[in-house]
Amino acid sequence: MHNGGEIAMPELRKCPITGRWVIISTERARRPLNLRLQTEEYAPGINPFQPGNEYLTPPEILAYRPGGAANSPNWSLRVIPNKYPALRVEGTLDKEGAGPYDKMNGVGAHEVIIETPDPNLRFSQYNEQTLQQVFRAYRDRIVDLKRDVRLKYILIFKNEGSSAGATQSHSHSQLIALPIVPKAVAEELRGAKTYSEYKERCIYCDIIKYELKDGSRLIAENPEMAAVAPYASRYPFETWILPRRHESYFETTNNEQFVFLSKIFSETMRRLEKALPRLSYNIVLHTSPLNEGEFPHYHWHFEITTRITQVAGFERGSGFYINPTPPEQAAGYLRKIRL
Amino acid sequence: MHNGGEIAMPELRKCPITGRWVIISTERARRPLNLRLQTEEYAPGINPFQPGNEYLTPPEILAYRPGGAANSPNWSLRVIPNKYPALRVEGTLDKEGAGPYDKMNGVGAHEVIIETPDPNLRFSQYNEQTLQQVFRAYRDRIVDLKRDVRLKYILIFKNEGSSAGATQSHSHSQLIALPIVPKAVAEELRGAKTYSEYKERCIYCDIIKYELKDGSRLIAENPEMAAVAPYASRYPFETWILPRRHESYFETTNNEQFVFLSKIFSETMRRLEKALPRLSYNIVLHTSPLNEGEFPHYHWHFEITTRITQVAGFERGSGFYINPTPPEQAAGYLRKIRL
Repeated sequence: MHNGGEIAMPELRKCPITGRWVIISTERARRPLNLRLQTEEYAPGINPFQPGNEYLTPPEILAYRPGGAANSPNWSLRVIPNKYPALRVEGTLDKEGAGPYDKMNGVGAHEVIIETPDPNLRFSQYNEQTLQQVFRAYRDRIVDLKRDVRLKYILIFKNEGSSAGATQSHSHSQLIALPIVPKAVAEELRGAKTYSEYKERCIYCDIIKYELKDGSRLIAENPEMAAVAPYASRYPFETWILPRRHESYFETTNNEQFVFLSKIFSETMRRLEKALPRLSYNIVLHTSPLNEGEFPHYHWHFEITTRITQVAGFERGSGFYINPTPPEQAAGYLRKIRL
Repeated sequence: MHNGGEIAMPELRKCPITGRWVIISTERARRPLNLRLQTEEYAPGINPFQPGNEYLTPPEILAYRPGGAANSPNWSLRVIPNKYPALRVEGTLDKEGAGPYDKMNGVGAHEVIIETPDPNLRFSQYNEQTLQQVFRAYRDRIVDLKRDVRLKYILIFKNEGSSAGATQSHSHSQLIALPIVPKAVAEELRGAKTYSEYKERCIYCDIIKYELKDGSRLIAENPEMAAVAPYASRYPFETWILPRRHESYFETTNNEQFVFLSKIFSETMRRLEKALPRLSYNIVLHTSPLNEGEFPHYHWHFEITTRITQVAGFERGSGFYINPTPPEQAAGYLRKIRL
């Protein structure tokens, strides 16, 4: 579409040992050393996400604006397809074997949520209205995409800071709709199910209740939401934000809950920003799979993982983490910050 | 020991959802913002790993030298305890509950293998003798440590380049002996066992045979070893090095096999270095657990994962990877390099 000619379909390949699926981008096959993902390939010095530059991006999928034509300025939030998507909406899954291996076509969606027209606003500086709008956009896109029965999971994430992988400094998040359930979520689902079969309760509900009572790892709370440093935090200042009421699917959250979600996100991000100025981090929404039956034992939440230490580089090969900051200390420090 | 006074035992904490264990270092509890691991805390500008500076490190555990006293210069390889270990050798596991959670004492070992006396030699520049010595040291330390029945797994890894987490530029690897099996290994064991129950063969043996025949993802081979780009590579230029003959335990590898292992490592690292000069990467040895019975279905190997792209930052929250370089292209490129 943008490189004038045939486009190879990205491939989803399954690790035969662990069962993990990986997207292998095949379109740059002749340039093995060109390792940047193509999201980086907008012209340097140009901000394609800025109002007035709408013509630089693919046509929008969704926008919140008081009025006016699609792809015109005057929006407060804008969702566009990723110019160089990791997955493609067209085509069939075509699951097949490849010798002893398994693969399927990289069918899915890859979208960019431009969260604010202001190119200089950091996520921690958003007001609650802007945050509410971001969460509404997440919900609106999930509701739209889940009608596509080929899709099994929608992964929504935000990279803040260059060391977290953000390639455009204009604040945005990304959505990847997948025909598989990512491994981390599958593991959480399995763990949560095992617990609920034994206890007949949701493990996340139990954790929230315990943390609200115990208080030592609590970062913030309001009537609908809690922000906690998880007991087995993998990273310094790791923070989870969870709804206090049991809810499996993010997309069933209503606007009133988004008010509380925005309040707690604003407070948490301001505390983190004040403790660790210009912090790099990733935020990942963990929610139930689509079109795969019911997940009454699962509880949606956000995980904020900081990128402070490079030291534990071997983690990725081992699944083993060393965290130099006890979560009780991180939470205590964050709670004490005066906003 | 080094901070004059009581030392808090590090804690191993279990994530109640996924079952993953994490080491929480508790000794710096009063300094939540001091996030560097203490390995970084040798005085700046001083190289404690250099011959002549032996007095700066804790007393050595193992050294290869033609003669002379312990902790004197004239060694060709030296193993020392990490000055600021993530785990401690003393003490009992003391497994206990903590509210709804589970923890145990951070009992284990944390060692540094100083692989060469030359402070400027990079791993890719080692000659085969130096490499053989490194692998012998890994084996010697595993054989010694596995007599401790509290230990379940020995994780050996190497971080090369600052973006991979190396804090001392003098080439070294690290060994962490754990009272638990790390998650990534447990998953591989589970997958390999499922396969062997069904096929009555080792999945790694099958992969090696297929890749040697197919050739498209083969990087290097010799009579005892193979280096391949795995079919579902998570990272550009990801490389696995495996023994061609089935072997569950790294520590049963003999010196003759180490000759071939060193040959293939030397070739692979030189190819990688020439393709991607000053590459940052992690190398992790995957081998069978200790003292936990037999693992006939498992096959030890090394995984080399590059740190070229920062882009896929959300991976860590999702277990989901996008790789812009197909492994066939990476392997083809590496094979064609003239050494």
